[in-house]
Amino acid sequence: MRLIFLGDIVGRAGREAVQRHVPVWRESLKLDLVVVNGENASHGYGLSPGIADDLFRAGVDVITLGNHAWDRRDMIGHIERTPRIIRPLNYPPNTPGQGSHIVSLADGRRALVVNVMGRLFMDAMDDPFRTVGDLLSRHRLGMTIQAAVIDFHGEATSEKIAFGNVMDGRVSLVVGTHTHVPTADCRILPKGTAYQTDAGMCGDYDSVIGMGKDASISRFIRKMPGERPQPAEGEATVCGVMVQTDDATGLAQKMAPIRVGGLLSAQWPDF
Amino acid sequence: MRLIFLGDIVGRAGREAVQRHVPVWRESLKLDLVVVNGENASHGYGLSPGIADDLFRAGVDVITLGNHAWDRRDMIGHIERTPRIIRPLNYPPNTPGQGSHIVSLADGRRALVVNVMGRLFMDAMDDPFRTVGDLLSRHRLGMTIQAAVIDFHGEATSEKIAFGNVMDGRVSLVVGTHTHVPTADCRILPKGTAYQTDAGMCGDYDSVIGMGKDASISRFIRKMPGERPQPAEGEATVCGVMVQTDDATGLAQKMAPIRVGGLLSAQWPDF
Amino acid sequence: MRLIFLGDIVGRAGREAVQRHVPVWRESLKLDLVVVNGENASHGYGLSPGIADDLFRAGVDVITLGNHAWDRRDMIGHIERTPRIIRPLNYPPNTPGQGSHIVSLADGRRALVVNVMGRLFMDAMDDPFRTVGDLLSRHRLGMTIQAAVIDFHGEATSEKIAFGNVMDGRVSLVVGTHTHVPTADCRILPKGTAYQTDAGMCGDYDSVIGMGKDASISRFIRKMPGERPQPAEGEATVCGVMVQTDDATGLAQKMAPIRVGGLLSAQWPDF
Amino acid sequence: MRLIFLGDIVGRAGREAVQRHVPVWRESLKLDLVVVNGENASHGYGLSPGIADDLFRAGVDVITLGNHAWDRRDMIGHIERTPRIIRPLNYPPNTPGQGSHIVSLADGRRALVVNVMGRLFMDAMDDPFRTVGDLLSRHRLGMTIQAAVIDFHGEATSEKIAFGNVMDGRVSLVVGTHTHVPTADCRILPKGTAYQTDAGMCGDYDSVIGMGKDASISRFIRKMPGERPQPAEGEATVCGVMVQTDDATGLAQKMAPIRVGGLLSAQWPDF
Ligand SMILES: [Fe+2]
Ligand SMILES: [Fe+2]
Ligand SMILES: [Fe+2]
Ligand SMILES: [Fe+2]
Ligand SMILES: [Fe+2]
Ligand SMILES: [Fe+2]
Ligand SMILES: [Fe+2]
Ligand SMILES: [Fe+2]
Repeated sequence: MRLIFLGDIVGRAGREAVQRHVPVWRESLKLDLVVVNGENASHGYGLSPGIADDLFRAGVDVITLGNHAWDRRDMIGHIERTPRIIRPLNYPPNTPGQGSHIVSLADGRRALVVNVMGRLFMDAMDDPFRTVGDLLSRHRLGMTIQAAVIDFHGEATSEKIAFGNVMDGRVSLVVGTHTHVPTADCRILPKGTAYQTDAGMCGDYDSVIGMGKDASISRFIRKMPGERPQPAEGEATVCGVMVQTDDATGLAQKMAPIRVGGLLSAQWPDF
Repeated sequence: MRLIFLGDIVGRAGREAVQRHVPVWRESLKLDLVVVNGENASHGYGLSPGIADDLFRAGVDVITLGNHAWDRRDMIGHIERTPRIIRPLNYPPNTPGQGSHIVSLADGRRALVVNVMGRLFMDAMDDPFRTVGDLLSRHRLGMTIQAAVIDFHGEATSEKIAFGNVMDGRVSLVVGTHTHVPTADCRILPKGTAYQTDAGMCGDYDSVIGMGKDASISRFIRKMPGERPQPAEGEATVCGVMVQTDDATGLAQKMAPIRVGGLLSAQWPDF
Repeated sequence: MRLIFLGDIVGRAGREAVQRHVPVWRESLKLDLVVVNGENASHGYGLSPGIADDLFRAGVDVITLGNHAWDRRDMIGHIERTPRIIRPLNYPPNTPGQGSHIVSLADGRRALVVNVMGRLFMDAMDDPFRTVGDLLSRHRLGMTIQAAVIDFHGEATSEKIAFGNVMDGRVSLVVGTHTHVPTADCRILPKGTAYQTDAGMCGDYDSVIGMGKDASISRFIRKMPGERPQPAEGEATVCGVMVQTDDATGLAQKMAPIRVGGLLSAQWPDF
Repeated sequence: MRLIFLGDIVGRAGREAVQRHVPVWRESLKLDLVVVNGENASHGYGLSPGIADDLFRAGVDVITLGNHAWDRRDMIGHIERTPRIIRPLNYPPNTPGQGSHIVSLADGRRALVVNVMGRLFMDAMDDPFRTVGDLLSRHRLGMTIQAAVIDFHGEATSEKIAFGNVMDGRVSLVVGTHTHVPTADCRILPKGTAYQTDAGMCGDYDSVIGMGKDASISRFIRKMPGERPQPAEGEATVCGVMVQTDDATGLAQKMAPIRVGGLLSAQWPDF
């Protein structure tokens, strides 16, 4: 299976770039699956139903979220009606929506997509290791599902890397989100799971993690609330990873970072 | 001026790789200045006087530290006698050692090297923005100093990026350390300062941020102290950045990531 | 000098109780000085100019604040015009308002009041120990000022107690605020400074730190934003401390907790 | 049932005072149940098997722990053999020891004792609300157990009060530990559960939360490791609460704070 995962889409700049590229890339990269993190798509804070629809129309299969899942209150009802939008799995029981979704491809293959949140330097959710372990015990990679993708939304590199290694050999891809900066550690772990600590955001990098520089800097220097930062509006870099998996095992055969447009150095898969 | 900065050296694997490469690279890359972060060089916890000497003998000019600065108690006296080892500038007044050092090249040019610590998700040090601002006001980039390099030792991408942008145009390079994962956002900011959110560690990446996987993972899953993690001993990836500056302005002309050896994709400067 | 300090006033319940009691107590307790923390007086979030005026009219001399200082934006201008409202001293330079105020009594005696914020489990402000130390070095207790009161707005008991002991013998009173629960450790430290880890709030204790129970509990259990908690509206307990100082030394002679009304056990000074 | 709970015993000063008083109080107060928190009994860091035995010999029925549960490695095996020592219930499954214990009195009555840890400003354990809720669903207060005592080991007042209110009517007592300072908010909540935000420590209060002042203060001011703080050795104040419950309902009839000896104002139950 050939799939891409794109990191946190921030505001209009990020959305427009993703919506422009995904339809083209589905063809040119022969993609079976497109997953994006949408937690900052709506002006930097949450995801709106309309923006989700736009992303699906552009060819996105599944949208993941994170700590900004509920910034837009209309997502609480919308996520119940839209199983292709998932929120972190390790919210408490009875949280609206689901933390995973199975995509059924036209050819019958199935891909599990999971969103889960870290706890180091973040809010105390349920244990991501145990919660995801329980979920995976209900699926057989290479049998009931042909691929499994986990978006680990977390702050600390140690926790993300520990999680990736715990999942190594059990899923196709573990990719981090939330820091809004792509890491350069893309690789296939020893037992076959593709891994990158952070996908990076899809947004304007002439910013502070996608938001206007002045308002963001002011918070660090002045320690006062000030203006609520707004998304930067320059050209976005679309950041993520591409993975090709073996349907028989569900493990990764090839992995490469993607970085297109904007200010970061370009990266494009060669497979 | 041509300089490299290498991120947190972790244990023997990291040390040996750095000591092997630096003498060669000083020649092949025509380097004027070599700075490394050594806070994890001694078995992952701190820096020892002997290890510092080894690094200096290999051609390192300045060693920076971080939150692990005092893990080895013998560093408290040693740093007072060794101005080329610097600890974060924003420790309180009267902390042993200095937070910056000026390297005088054989040809008379001078380079300021600064180490400073972030505060988001870290201990509450003095304000890094103000502390570094005060220091820089005593130097004239392109006049009294030809280059200025800042190692911002921090956890949060937002704080590091905000800091980089505040320093843009005032120093040659702002590079992050502490997360032990290289970021892929290397670039020259609008006013001429080279920037990368994290240099990445110099250590074995088949690990959790340089330390043995089992002991590190156990802490996340079992929530008990367990074994103290030891550095992983496989081949290190040496990670950092190279920058070429204009002596007349002190600003960056070229910048590139460095990643050599081990498990990460290779990167080598083309200038 | 005879003084009382009352802890964080929360919403209408807290305000009305304070405004009803203070005029009476100024007489009955022969008070020279009344200081209150007002950071939650405006519906739980910040202080408004009108509420501040009401408190001053009731006989309050100085209002301190805390991490909620700027919840009401109109306080930014108002604090500049109203030196009797103070915000934590350890905000960065150029923050609106002041972190201390000297009250001149009718009889010529002077009392310094200081507000400062802790850093453990809170935002990284300037060092409270050093900042207050610098301020105190400009005054002579028992000479240029007859009393000095410090409201240490902090979360962690260890930091508050450490601060109290560092200030022991240098000020009349160190009293904590912010946790909204009175502590039972009121005492005069060895060198003469009156100390209590937290004054407790002035608000309805049938609540979660002054705010409605359902909305507050929901945040812990559901981990979703939900309703913004509103102040509880039952009868407030007015909480604080009373201190009698020796004008010649500025140190404490007597100290007692105050708890009046509402659900907590009553405490009233016997001096 | 008549019971006392005493907060974190710190070092020798705390131990000796508790061991001296408990045998006497069991008689004079006609106590059916004595619970103490022992997480700091061994030189401030953890509990040793020998110290636990001493406490049991003095008449303690159950010892609770907290974040220092595993400071002494020999506790890992000992807790498995000693069900009367309990560690926080919300450690992950398969953690050594248990998080609750049922004491069977000589007259056949049974009391459930639970230890659980908060998550705000602490490590991310399992959800304390849900974990304790699940446990309580297996018992009937007033039927299968005559009393239930919960030691909530936590930092933040908001989380402790929220927890107390969620448990109101379902247990006899919720009492906090960990901050080492007694709070003055002892009361019976609307549905009959006795509550106090923190029991306070049993230790020398001329200290920083029980440990030597100089070493503790130094950490805040110098931000360097320095000496490991040792317990203060002056006379301890024994701090806790006494509760009398109705066996038919398991709810609280009377509650009072206990403070005996040392530097804090004395409090003694009048029932
Ligand atoms: Fe995000
Ligand atoms: Fe996020
Ligand atoms: Fe490091
Ligand atoms: Fe570090
Ligand atoms: Fe408050
Ligand atoms: Fe506060
Ligand atoms: Fe404790
Ligand atoms: Fe504790």
